[in-house]
Amino acid sequence: MTGTVYLVGAGPGDPGLLTLKGKMLLELAEVVIYDALVSPPILAMINPQAERVFVGKYRGWHSLPQAQITELLVTKAREYQTVVRLKAGDPFIFGRGGEEEAGLQEAGIAVQVVPGISAGLAVGFPLTHRQVSSSVVLVTGHEAVEKSEASVNWAALAQGADTLVIYMGMHRLAQITAALMRGGRAGETPVCVVQWGTWPQERRLFGTLATIHDLVTQAGFTAPAMVVVGEVVRLQRL
Amino acid sequence: MTGTVYLVGAGPGDPGLLTLKGKMLLELAEVVIYDALVSPPILAMINPQAERVFVGKYRGWHSLPQAQITELLVTKAREYQTVVRLKAGDPFIFGRGGEEEAGLQEAGIAVQVVPGISAGLAVGFPLTHRQVSSSVVLVTGHEAVEKSEASVNWAALAQGADTLVIYMGMHRLAQITAALMRGGRAGETPVCVVQWGTWPQERRLFGTLATIHDLVTQAGFTAPAMVVVGEVVRLQRL
Repeated sequence: MTGTVYLVGAGPGDPGLLTLKGKMLLELAEVVIYDALVSPPILAMINPQAERVFVGKYRGWHSLPQAQITELLVTKAREYQTVVRLKAGDPFIFGRGGEEEAGLQEAGIAVQVVPGISAGLAVGFPLTHRQVSSSVVLVTGHEAVEKSEASVNWAALAQGADTLVIYMGMHRLAQITAALMRGGRAGETPVCVVQWGTWPQERRLFGTLATIHDLVTQAGFTAPAMVVVGEVVRLQRL
Repeated sequence: MTGTVYLVGAGPGDPGLLTLKGKMLLELAEVVIYDALVSPPILAMINPQAERVFVGKYRGWHSLPQAQITELLVTKAREYQTVVRLKAGDPFIFGRGGEEEAGLQEAGIAVQVVPGISAGLAVGFPLTHRQVSSSVVLVTGHEAVEKSEASVNWAALAQGADTLVIYMGMHRLAQITAALMRGGRAGETPVCVVQWGTWPQERRLFGTLATIHDLVTQAGFTAPAMVVVGEVVRLQRL
């Protein structure tokens, strides 16, 4: 009899933003397979008797390839009743949860998904706002290189989305901001880069589409960080 | 000495998807001001000694106007130390949290925002997926009528966003699906309407951009429901 794999979103980092179901599953887990960027206070909630397997990238080491992670989850589900796959943020927002879910289903393993608060939704700005923003797009700045379809249509998003939240966009920030300006967004559009959002070391940098790349370079901001673009960035805390 | 107002997201409905911080604040609250669509098991977590104020729409009754809700929060913060403003989903995703935060700050009241899982992010599909979706837009189908800027640019979103999650779109579903098809999305694009997502009475209806409006009418689906549009809808559970 095989167990169940729970794909659990750990949220952005602040342990208070973990869900009740996520905490309960960490306490019940017999094995937890976890990524980098899951915060230490959340790892501290794991059942002390549970086996822990780290599969994330760390200090230049490569992470385990996705197919091997899925294989590992299948193996553990044949060994244990309660397998937790713990991911930073939400499994279904740039978390590759869909691939793991499909791989487990193909292997005949029961899967349950427990959403978490995605980092882009915990940046502290009202991402939608009457009069200012009727839409928010969550978009990756780092596409799968083997992706068969065309790349992100930044010009259409520049026109269509009032607020943009860009995940994994730090390495291509100059190209992305240029594409949004070519697509018709004004250079003065406010931008905030939020590094380590909700973690104790959280830092923020404010600029515009025209200036943010230089500011990020000067300040030495690096990944992980979210890039928020749009008028709602003006609605910052007093 | 005035108290603090906590704008707390209750999540989509399943009490297991409330955050740890949200639960703690419900237990500490001296007064809770809450909307419709906060689920009964979450209301059951409120400190039994707390004053409760319901400000949502209910069975044809109008909800309290937004300015009056903000005024009420200010009044309660002058009376109590711990005031919880409990909202379904996330305060900053079509929750008018930005307006309440600004109103409280103008009145000199301390505010803290506790994100929740927005209903559109708990629909059970991988909203992003390598090879299939590099972006997901959360958009309202029911714009503020007094909005000064142009309405939602459905044509640009049809081109730019791989996955669309439409909030409050049930009343204008025929117009929205038509606008997306005029914008270039194929009539065969898969669509799922999720009514009462994560509640015990959850129902789902699958169709396409061309068929979903008729299917919804035939099935008698009504609000509250989320409309999910895009190829990821094909990645349904086995």
